Amino acid sequence: MFALGSARELENLRVVLVEPRNPLNIGAVARAMSNFGFSRLRLVSPYELAFREARSAVGASALMRAAEVFRSIPEAVKDCAVVVGTTAVRHRQLHHPLHQLKAASPMLLGELAQAPVALLFGSEKFGLSTEDLSYCHWLLRIPTRDEHISMNLGQAVAICLYELIRGRKGTKRLGVEKSSATMEEIDRLTEVFTGLLHASGYIKQRTVASSEEKVRRLIRRMKLNGRDAELMLGMLRKVEWKLRSRSEP
Amino acid sequence: MFALGSARELENLRVVLVEPRNPLNIGAVARAMSNFGFSRLRLVSPYELAFREARSAVGASALMRAAEVFRSIPEAVKDCAVVVGTTAVRHRQLHHPLHQLKAASPMLLGELAQAPVALLFGSEKFGLSTEDLSYCHWLLRIPTRDEHISMNLGQAVAICLYELIRGRKGTKRLGVEKSSATMEEIDRLTEVFTGLLHASGYIKQRTVASSEEKVRRLIRRMKLNGRDAELMLGMLRKVEWKLRSRSEP
Repeated sequence: MFALGSARELENLRVVLVEPRNPLNIGAVARAMSNFGFSRLRLVSPYELAFREARSAVGASALMRAAEVFRSIPEAVKDCAVVVGTTAVRHRQLHHPLHQLKAASPMLLGELAQAPVALLFGSEKFGLSTEDLSYCHWLLRIPTRDEHISMNLGQAVAICLYELIRGRKGTKRLGVEKSSATMEEIDRLTEVFTGLLHASGYIKQRTVASSEEKVRRLIRRMKLNGRDAELMLGMLRKVEWKLRSRSEP
Repeated sequence: MFALGSARELENLRVVLVEPRNPLNIGAVARAMSNFGFSRLRLVSPYELAFREARSAVGASALMRAAEVFRSIPEAVKDCAVVVGTTAVRHRQLHHPLHQLKAASPMLLGELAQAPVALLFGSEKFGLSTEDLSYCHWLLRIPTRDEHISMNLGQAVAICLYELIRGRKGTKRLGVEKSSATMEEIDRLTEVFTGLLHASGYIKQRTVASSEEKVRRLIRRMKLNGRDAELMLGMLRKVEWKLRSRSEP
């Protein structure tokens, strides 16, 4: 008998589809989740009509009907300790650690044993953008051929979930760590930090977007626990206040 | 860099869809095959319209256009040494060895290193029938939840192919065996054997279908090599001739 493991670990995974456009794909994702025992589906800015169709399709599951919709990635991953992006690309200059699915799976399982984890999938046409990726701690890819790297969304999700289930037996907890900061804490920190860099003139108008992404990645690489995030937030706030009050006469 | 291994091993796999009905699924199967480097797609009695649509779809791949159509499973697997069926069912009384995909993969890879192998997938609605399964040497299943075992066809194929690719590194050839009998030889043998059993009165009119399936499975379990199949065929033919000539006055 195959053991799918504790409900908690399965529940800790949030499958997050960013701007999905095809109702059939959304339905296929929900079906694969149900096949393998996952239940938390989230959509970021789905193509409105696609979502409505997927939700109202004959035989749409409770899982599909319970899917949550968000307007941005930060909102969708707010309660997660780790955000992992999926990408087909391997040669593009990446600012993130990139792992093959096979190697990524035990890492994900280790995280899932401790806290909620978001697994992000990009739109059918474009995948995850550089901005989307800047919200991620690390990336994984399914080992497709160089000549045909881009997978169907429903199939990509199914394979990732299968790999998680496949690897669950024999997984060990990665020791007890201080509990990671939530993405909400990390976002607040990023915001304050970014504001600080704006105020300081570090971030120049011409390169705002890329600089802000750089900050986001930096903070995520720190892997702060909740207490440290809080601590750092207090410090940065103080610095920012000082900086702003000095620049005003 | 991920090594997909020798072209020959990839080419030895025939993905066989039995009575597929949905052109989108057929297209999704072709896409996953291309993603993972497989090329030989075969269809048994596809729903005519579905196949035409899948083949003529915008962006249909060379792989899809090269798909071969057969009227029966024996015709579709004629050149294969091993036929493996996929099933979601685990509690139904099975007459075959059944392996989890994870365990099945190294077995498949061992076979693929030596000879063509057919991997059968049933129709979206019904899966493989008992008769379909009687053409198989053994079965594999993807470990889905008891509460929702049935997978989407495109996703099931994608997961099986991924598992093959995933496991290819570190696979060893299973020693050099005498080359297995082809399915054409096995079919001829089955036919003669069945004829013999009819002629002998072993097979009763009331249970023809199930008896014939039983014979098919029996012969496949023997795992004959080519020379032995030929030998046995000669023997059975002789017996049958004798039997028939005695029963006629």
